[in-house]
Amino acid sequence: MTREVDVAILGAGSAGLFALSQVKRETDNYVLINGGELGTTCARVGCMPSKVLIQVAEDFHRKSIFGREGIDGAEELSVDVPASMEHVQDLRDVFVDKTLSVTDDMDEQHLIEGYAKFISNDTIEVNGEQIKAKSIIIATGSAPVVPAAWQDLADNVITTDDFFELEDLPASMAVVGLGSIGLEIGQALQRLGVAVTGVDQLEKVASLQDEKVNEMAITVLTREFPLWLGQAASLEAVADGIQVTAGDKQVVVDKVLASLGRKPNLAELNLAATDIALDDNGSPLFDPLTMQLGELPIYIAGDVNADRPILHEAGHEGRVAGYNAVHHALSGAVDKFKRKVPFGITFCDPNIATVGMQLGELALNDIVIGEIQFAPVGRALIIGKNRGVLRLYVQKSDGLLIGSAMCCVKAENLAHLISWSIQQGMTIFDMLKMPFYHPVIEEALQAALYNALSQLDGDFNLVELDRL
Amino acid sequence: MTREVDVAILGAGSAGLFALSQVKRETDNYVLINGGELGTTCARVGCMPSKVLIQVAEDFHRKSIFGREGIDGAEELSVDVPASMEHVQDLRDVFVDKTLSVTDDMDEQHLIEGYAKFISNDTIEVNGEQIKAKSIIIATGSAPVVPAAWQDLADNVITTDDFFELEDLPASMAVVGLGSIGLEIGQALQRLGVAVTGVDQLEKVASLQDEKVNEMAITVLTREFPLWLGQAASLEAVADGIQVTAGDKQVVVDKVLASLGRKPNLAELNLAATDIALDDNGSPLFDPLTMQLGELPIYIAGDVNADRPILHEAGHEGRVAGYNAVHHALSGAVDKFKRKVPFGITFCDPNIATVGMQLGELALNDIVIGEIQFAPVGRALIIGKNRGVLRLYVQKSDGLLIGSAMCCVKAENLAHLISWSIQQGMTIFDMLKMPFYHPVIEEALQAALYNALSQLDGDFNLVELDRL
Repeated sequence: MTREVDVAILGAGSAGLFALSQVKRETDNYVLINGGELGTTCARVGCMPSKVLIQVAEDFHRKSIFGREGIDGAEELSVDVPASMEHVQDLRDVFVDKTLSVTDDMDEQHLIEGYAKFISNDTIEVNGEQIKAKSIIIATGSAPVVPAAWQDLADNVITTDDFFELEDLPASMAVVGLGSIGLEIGQALQRLGVAVTGVDQLEKVASLQDEKVNEMAITVLTREFPLWLGQAASLEAVADGIQVTAGDKQVVVDKVLASLGRKPNLAELNLAATDIALDDNGSPLFDPLTMQLGELPIYIAGDVNADRPILHEAGHEGRVAGYNAVHHALSGAVDKFKRKVPFGITFCDPNIATVGMQLGELALNDIVIGEIQFAPVGRALIIGKNRGVLRLYVQKSDGLLIGSAMCCVKAENLAHLISWSIQQGMTIFDMLKMPFYHPVIEEALQAALYNALSQLDGDFNLVELDRL
Repeated sequence: MTREVDVAILGAGSAGLFALSQVKRETDNYVLINGGELGTTCARVGCMPSKVLIQVAEDFHRKSIFGREGIDGAEELSVDVPASMEHVQDLRDVFVDKTLSVTDDMDEQHLIEGYAKFISNDTIEVNGEQIKAKSIIIATGSAPVVPAAWQDLADNVITTDDFFELEDLPASMAVVGLGSIGLEIGQALQRLGVAVTGVDQLEKVASLQDEKVNEMAITVLTREFPLWLGQAASLEAVADGIQVTAGDKQVVVDKVLASLGRKPNLAELNLAATDIALDDNGSPLFDPLTMQLGELPIYIAGDVNADRPILHEAGHEGRVAGYNAVHHALSGAVDKFKRKVPFGITFCDPNIATVGMQLGELALNDIVIGEIQFAPVGRALIIGKNRGVLRLYVQKSDGLLIGSAMCCVKAENLAHLISWSIQQGMTIFDMLKMPFYHPVIEEALQAALYNALSQLDGDFNLVELDRL
């Protein structure tokens, strides 16, 4: 027997649920199919629990400043790691429950728990049932990468999928892969008392393309734990743990966190049964403005497309895929929607953030780079976090802000101002007219704007003012 | 003998120094006259040292969350108050030095230390010398108000002018006047171990016009120290300190911080010798777009004009006054410049902020109020500061954001996004298209925007997206 539906959504993660919200507006004849545990990556093993861990670590680490502030007793503070992990898990459960509330109310007609695979471009099979859909949305998410060679090391190599289930932390860990996740968790673990070694085969952390920001990040982070950069790690089981080797460096640790990135959950979908075109990495080719795969009645959204694996982009893509999938099913119409400005935050301390175009994409002759070192920024000094740098990429021809990279205190907030400015097409002249309160970290952005201005030709007296 | 100059600036505080930067561009024939200590109010006794005190208090107070986070030993922490005050003073001195660097290099021809008074519209006298100026800028700042009846209580009633010089803190204090300064310092003192009682004759704190935000602020702050609202305080010297009475409440404290506002430093200027027109409060009438006093060759900037006594507005006014004063002197031209969006932050915890128009200025029928309570905001919950409220005032007719008030974690950052949005004339439809990362406090603003949207008529599906 074959059921027929307007839209089938594969995956009840963030992207799938955003898609669902669009689909439900137009039809009740849809099905949401989810393999594995319900609850989003974000809430279960991603953004949310990691932020709780980081918050605890940051609060504990703050004692390092107590001496200069006249606060006594810092040396009496200690972390009860199992209690901290329980706190992480408690809040994690709150966040997971929130995401589950969407699927909790769904009946069996609309929600199927099982792994779907394609039979053809418009038919899937799940739990032995075939479902024919006018549109299909692939939103199956991603899973952490673990190299085949490391599979044997079993329990001693963990990923974020397992990490937040730990009831205690080991005495020592290597964090292999220093993208956002590796940096965030590595630093938090070190602060909570784990002896952490960070390893990455690249000389960059957090995918930074700006050498000055990368250097600042490495300088600040290595004050807390060693970063081994530029050599791939190899692992070997030894009597007392796992030996990690990278170039001429070696350390034996209790456990390894593999934070080497995530790969799309495509393997079980049987894409071979469809006409989906794949790129060299085996990822489906799609139009980022419509989320459609070629001319097929198939859409893709979220981490599974290996592009912009962050929640607000999964939301954007889910909305677009859901809207287009259901309109495609009902009327054949497919609309194009502008993408948001690229935006990434690593929630280490200080934060690392990138917005808009990055140095690798820019012609250096066409831009000036406005830079501010945080050392003299008043509020940063008051907070005791005045190591950092903010760089702005500004078009020479017209002062348009087109990108930014930073490693500094409160970058998560600064990056919002910057991303809104870039998405609106603001020039640095526009931005300098905006209010900057005092004394706030936003004044560092103001200083970076002035630094960019000083490199442009012209007399910019009273650039802060709007003449009437 | 009468010197003749193009421009005389009275006051070397923030406004005066910003004015100077404009004047110097056009003429070397100027004089900067400063009575009293050099170094700005902001750096010496205002924004800067108060933020240091708040930071120490906040860091110490954070121990209240350690239990739930699994951090042991909070009860062993204590504050060495003299060490903390020394830290405040050390950083204060750094900030003061920075502002002094501007005047350090000035010779006697350009910088006169002394109190100036007017002889006529274009002549002043200082240290016995008469100086005739083509333009004069009044930027003499303000001083804390202390009621005449309290002058007798001498050392036991202090203001911010004295506060940051204290080497130790008393065991108990009353803070009379719960505007920004009173709330900021009162809460910090309580956190540092002083038994604080807050008193204000109004039922509002921080000049809030929004009852819901005011209630939230009072609810959160009274968990830390008592606020006596709605009755004026009277003080009486008693054997063991000062007895503070407000309505039927009484307390005896060691010292009182008078934070009743600041009054312009006008009294010694001998304005009677000029044609300056005054308002009912004795403040000079001026054009906020030019900073000129009537048609006179006299300009006013900064706290002395009793309007917007915050640094970035002193900067704006100083620039405008300086530009117009020197151009008036040299060519007679006076230009008008748009004002920035009104913007106020109280750096208590949680922060209080107001931006744009406030409820008292708005016709309730013409607006919807977008509101978000912080209790369910994920990141606020993680930080452990999920008591708060953010309210947005939105024009019903077109969705234009025209004002906001909030009491919430990181309001200082949210208020920047909001102030930039209002100053640019953004609607809530524009704002919802901007990126909101996850999980960040900015998502609370997003939720408030959605709440406002839900109160407008229309189908706003995909309001977050820009159709191509």
